[in-house]
Amino acid sequence: MNAANIDVLVREVGLRDGLQMVAEFFPTDQKIAWIRAEAAAGVREIEVSSFVPPKLIPQFADAEAVVEAALQIGGLTVMALVPNLRGAERGLALGVHKLDFVMSVSRTHNLKNVRREREESLADLRRIVAARDAAAAAGGTRTQIAAGLSTALGCSYEGAIAVGDVCRYAAALAEAGVDEIMVADTVGYADPALVRKAFRAVLAEVGDVPVAAHFHDTRGTGLANVVAALDCGVRRFDASLAGLGGCPFAPGATGNIVMDDLCFMLDSMGLRTGVDLSRLLAVREILARQLPAAEMRGALARAGLPTGYQPAPQRVPA
Amino acid sequence: MNAANIDVLVREVGLRDGLQMVAEFFPTDQKIAWIRAEAAAGVREIEVSSFVPPKLIPQFADAEAVVEAALQIGGLTVMALVPNLRGAERGLALGVHKLDFVMSVSRTHNLKNVRREREESLADLRRIVAARDAAAAAGGTRTQIAAGLSTALGCSYEGAIAVGDVCRYAAALAEAGVDEIMVADTVGYADPALVRKAFRAVLAEVGDVPVAAHFHDTRGTGLANVVAALDCGVRRFDASLAGLGGCPFAPGATGNIVMDDLCFMLDSMGLRTGVDLSRLLAVREILARQLPAAEMRGALARAGLPTGYQPAPQRVPA
Repeated sequence: MNAANIDVLVREVGLRDGLQMVAEFFPTDQKIAWIRAEAAAGVREIEVSSFVPPKLIPQFADAEAVVEAALQIGGLTVMALVPNLRGAERGLALGVHKLDFVMSVSRTHNLKNVRREREESLADLRRIVAARDAAAAAGGTRTQIAAGLSTALGCSYEGAIAVGDVCRYAAALAEAGVDEIMVADTVGYADPALVRKAFRAVLAEVGDVPVAAHFHDTRGTGLANVVAALDCGVRRFDASLAGLGGCPFAPGATGNIVMDDLCFMLDSMGLRTGVDLSRLLAVREILARQLPAAEMRGALARAGLPTGYQPAPQRVPA
Repeated sequence: MNAANIDVLVREVGLRDGLQMVAEFFPTDQKIAWIRAEAAAGVREIEVSSFVPPKLIPQFADAEAVVEAALQIGGLTVMALVPNLRGAERGLALGVHKLDFVMSVSRTHNLKNVRREREESLADLRRIVAARDAAAAAGGTRTQIAAGLSTALGCSYEGAIAVGDVCRYAAALAEAGVDEIMVADTVGYADPALVRKAFRAVLAEVGDVPVAAHFHDTRGTGLANVVAALDCGVRRFDASLAGLGGCPFAPGATGNIVMDDLCFMLDSMGLRTGVDLSRLLAVREILARQLPAAEMRGALARAGLPTGYQPAPQRVPA
């Protein structure tokens, strides 16, 4: 963890994982307002955009402007997704703090998602690491590279994924020189028992490379899986405000775990996230205004804080 | 656990905890259809009604008819709530298998809910146990008595509840001779850390009296709390189909954890519940037809089973 006085890092990924599913363009100034408001609420790290070709996902045509604005916010780690070396070069040129490179453990999903074999994805990653190292050697700041393993806990095409495969690719990512590995339950298949098994195995495999968990709440097990990952020692979690995500053309698809509910659960457990729950809840208004048709999920937003609730770590142990 | 080949007992409480919040009368034949369909799906125990005065909650005016019909179903344990000795006598006269007596750990909530001090509630319970023992001695079957501790993990009036108080009342229930203790998060305040602390303490306090967990999903932590309770060794959980519950006049109130999602999570973890997930999901149709305005919750119902899903224990370990 960084110098900040927190126990768990919660990372907002709604601007990327959530908005990539939203057809209507979310105005650049409103994206920036969302980022600023969450940072002001205490969120330390945000995946703000994706350096994909704008013609593929027009939502991210403003990636440069959004990243540049986010980089002005003190204390915020700015992450952006890069699908390939070209995307990484765009990110490195801007001085983004962290690149998010994604490949799938499921061969079928990787072929459908990025149209290449998994070994080709690893080769892409190595080129990105080399580009990063060259940029750093040329005197720039050293950009971090986080690599995500999609469909690590199940795949809509292939079904169950062997934990051994997850470990093999996690080891390859570590070997390639990444600064962080995200193990992702892309389609919401995971249960707490599988989470414990997979994360323990991955953590044992990758040594001191930090491992983050990226869960979707598609089948209701999202926060239960967080508890299981916490038990393994995981202290970095992706989430999206109001659980933004899911595809309007895929009934049943849902987004990431709900950022606000995640922060509430962690805070209730006495784990400091640095996030002010009331200020975080207030940020939902930006989404509600901009995406009136979107499903805004979140139990805390609906029920409110418990009577006499004291945020961590000021709470008095019972 | 009974002779049935299961690892975890899931108990349907929607006919009591859910329907008590529903103003419109749910027809007796439809209540019985719901019970029969869930029993046919493999649910071993159902809280089918409440022996409260019908003028207080008209929804339960048909308690006798519902209990009598449920008692005809082979292999099903039939439970009914009893608020006092008069209610217990109604249940004992019918030969219900299990009485559910409830008191609150929060003094304020107990006063509001049953209009008496907690010590008076304990005295009520002792009279009910004596009535049960007398009925059994007179040659009837021995009815089990389960006692619930409401607001054990938080109270809307009092806020946080001391774990020491929960243990004190749990010990008093065990001392009174109950066959099971339910620790209830009535208002959905619990987090997994509190659940572990409270359940470990209660289990240590009550010896070999089985302890069940009764969670509400008001703030999104329901299934996460189940994981925490499983870790403590709890193997009995209350839930309601589609999460039925909550009060239409209390914004933000929500029902019990969702029975279908609970069964899916447990099954995914390799814990046998005896419940056929597809048949259970089909029972939701009875609720949807009868309560068109009710909020039907449930992630599994929305997303469907994962590709290639194999129910426990046939699933092949990865």
